[in-house]
Amino acid sequence: MIRLDTAAPGFAAAFDTLVNDRREADADVSRDVAAIIGSVRREGDAALHAFTKKFDGHDLNDSGWRIERADCEAALETLDPDLREALTLARDRITAYHEKQRPADAEYAEDNGIVTGARWRGVDAAGLYVPGGRAAYPSSVLMNAIPARVAGVERLVIVTPTPRGEANLLVLAAAALVGADEVWRVGGAQAIAALAYGTDRIKPVDVICGPGNAWVAEAKRQLYGVVGIDMVAGPSEIVVVADRANDPEWTAADLLSQSEHDPTSQSILFTDDAGFADAVADAVDRQIGTLSTAKVARAAWDANGAIVLVRSLEEAMPLVNRLAPEHLELAVADPAPLFDLVRHAGSVFLGRHTPEAVGDYVAGPNHVLPTGRRARFASGLSVLDFMKRTSFLSLSQEGLAAIGPAAVRLAEAEGLPAHARSVALRLS
Amino acid sequence: MIRLDTAAPGFAAAFDTLVNDRREADADVSRDVAAIIGSVRREGDAALHAFTKKFDGHDLNDSGWRIERADCEAALETLDPDLREALTLARDRITAYHEKQRPADAEYAEDNGIVTGARWRGVDAAGLYVPGGRAAYPSSVLMNAIPARVAGVERLVIVTPTPRGEANLLVLAAAALVGADEVWRVGGAQAIAALAYGTDRIKPVDVICGPGNAWVAEAKRQLYGVVGIDMVAGPSEIVVVADRANDPEWTAADLLSQSEHDPTSQSILFTDDAGFADAVADAVDRQIGTLSTAKVARAAWDANGAIVLVRSLEEAMPLVNRLAPEHLELAVADPAPLFDLVRHAGSVFLGRHTPEAVGDYVAGPNHVLPTGRRARFASGLSVLDFMKRTSFLSLSQEGLAAIGPAAVRLAEAEGLPAHARSVALRLS
Repeated sequence: MIRLDTAAPGFAAAFDTLVNDRREADADVSRDVAAIIGSVRREGDAALHAFTKKFDGHDLNDSGWRIERADCEAALETLDPDLREALTLARDRITAYHEKQRPADAEYAEDNGIVTGARWRGVDAAGLYVPGGRAAYPSSVLMNAIPARVAGVERLVIVTPTPRGEANLLVLAAAALVGADEVWRVGGAQAIAALAYGTDRIKPVDVICGPGNAWVAEAKRQLYGVVGIDMVAGPSEIVVVADRANDPEWTAADLLSQSEHDPTSQSILFTDDAGFADAVADAVDRQIGTLSTAKVARAAWDANGAIVLVRSLEEAMPLVNRLAPEHLELAVADPAPLFDLVRHAGSVFLGRHTPEAVGDYVAGPNHVLPTGRRARFASGLSVLDFMKRTSFLSLSQEGLAAIGPAAVRLAEAEGLPAHARSVALRLS
Repeated sequence: MIRLDTAAPGFAAAFDTLVNDRREADADVSRDVAAIIGSVRREGDAALHAFTKKFDGHDLNDSGWRIERADCEAALETLDPDLREALTLARDRITAYHEKQRPADAEYAEDNGIVTGARWRGVDAAGLYVPGGRAAYPSSVLMNAIPARVAGVERLVIVTPTPRGEANLLVLAAAALVGADEVWRVGGAQAIAALAYGTDRIKPVDVICGPGNAWVAEAKRQLYGVVGIDMVAGPSEIVVVADRANDPEWTAADLLSQSEHDPTSQSILFTDDAGFADAVADAVDRQIGTLSTAKVARAAWDANGAIVLVRSLEEAMPLVNRLAPEHLELAVADPAPLFDLVRHAGSVFLGRHTPEAVGDYVAGPNHVLPTGRRARFASGLSVLDFMKRTSFLSLSQEGLAAIGPAAVRLAEAEGLPAHARSVALRLS
């Protein structure tokens, strides 16, 4: 963890480093991934079979390629009732929020018979990657699948590695809850390639979403354009802006809720009170020891944690915008004025009673958010990621007479005579 | 040009080939581009200087790095008044259409003190690539710059190669018309790298848009994630669905208006009348000879043109959806029923008096559209490409009490104790 102070000499340079040295897992996996994609494209299911044996340690012909709907339903039924209820609440609230994102079709008629507009339609099929191992989160299934469902996607396909053939029951339960149409026991770059190009068994999809390791992320990046992808995701981040009226224990827990995700996660506190900064730092150290995720949280906090002392919380906001954090908590009594200063953030949590973790699960807005300063230009996952807009134009003879001559003039100027002729023929 | 008939034996396989063998310029440029990006990232302006000397044949220190605003204004003033008027009409109509795309902020308050919502903000800076040479189109400047302006982008930067130092006056005039803030005499992959990473002279941007050759497209693909990009663009396409009541000369001109763009462009006619098909084929052959773009149009039509005979125009629509064309004309008296069958298309042109070329210039909707079957999952350029959504959440104590326990339960099930604690502390 580093401590910075906007009033200290060298602050600007130190903060630049914090902004620019945000490391992403950039192991040189791109060659490996390109080779895997090539194999799957050429050999289809045979490649999936071989890679699964090699990386996941089981034979798909023995374990079965698919997990059946009935198995997912069974996983949901055997779930602890408390947990099933929590998942159902999450599903319902996430669905309600995302339904409001559905865009409206538009049609604009002008007096002279010119009509323009746009229609939105869902993509035909979406593929959702669900990691195996540590990051196999049912909440992630909900957050990725529900926007696709709300968009009207007809075919929702889950791919997930099952190391040694063992599936994660929580993930299966979540798959049942969102009504996934297919669940395949394949993972890694090979699963992404199968979704993009299709194999005999797995039909191709139009959009691929969901978190994954460096191989999965690189495969999505390489296949961007062949299919739509949700985004390039990096390590998770939180920025907390807090005054001294907060309970340091609460703030410490909020910072640690990012640190425990991954050793590369980043947690940063901005505060205008040095005593509060010390109290939070102490509370973090105390709390870490009690976590079952202590090892990861400690590594992340030590390497990427920061506490920045500012003259005023307003002074923090331009710095926060430079970080463009995935998650931003404004833990003050009246967060509205600070919120108005936010230009770049994935999701904002307002007030003292809004810990970011509520947003991870049950609040409604999506928890798939831009990381690594990408909130400068990118948004969280939404219904729009699973829809596309078709614009349209309709001209009467009168309408064409009104605007056609300008099109002819421009086409001629650009040296495109067939463009000009296609309009001019209709004007004569 | 190939002729297909849905009733002929072998149609399915032949149409599959038409759908799947859509070639993109996939010269192996990715290594070259990676090297250029690396040089610009390491050496900044020195690399730009060297690449410009090598590829564009002029010395930036002699020709000047920037084209000044005054030079753009002068280009606009010296323009033929007719042409200036046409460009201005285009700008005003494109602006009016895109202003309606601006998304509304949302806020949803629930009874128990739970508030969710989203705010949209423009990105800080956008970079627009404008090709030199054949494809230096002022209409492209308008179509890319106006959505950025409407989105509220504060800094709009144009990069454009000026071979041997010569700038395209039409492009400069368009730059003046959209109020570009900076115009730089750099092009190719090196210009994209400069926009993404910044150099001493050129500050980095957040989103890069605009057409370009294979090097430019590959640079955008490689830098996707470092910045936002508009899309991966391929050769241009048109599908025309027409009955025999159309004038074959009009239909032929519409098909040629794509063919003349590039030898890789594709034009396809679907019709239910064999005689009309013959008449259009004849008209295309006759018209090509009269075009100044004959060489390109002939190459494109010969290699990628197609006429598909269908039993009925309704039968054509599932085939059109498989092609997911960039442009689709429905040239019939009542296009509405066919339009309702369209699932995947970039932009649709309805009726006999709506040639696609009007949409290229002055109608209002954007002419930057998904190609190469990407309309299955992608949309045309819009104001949304230059904005991003920040979701938000605000909880009262009561609201947290209502949904917090479910979050605790899910966090525990996912093995994330600090997540659970950050909520639980506030519940006690």
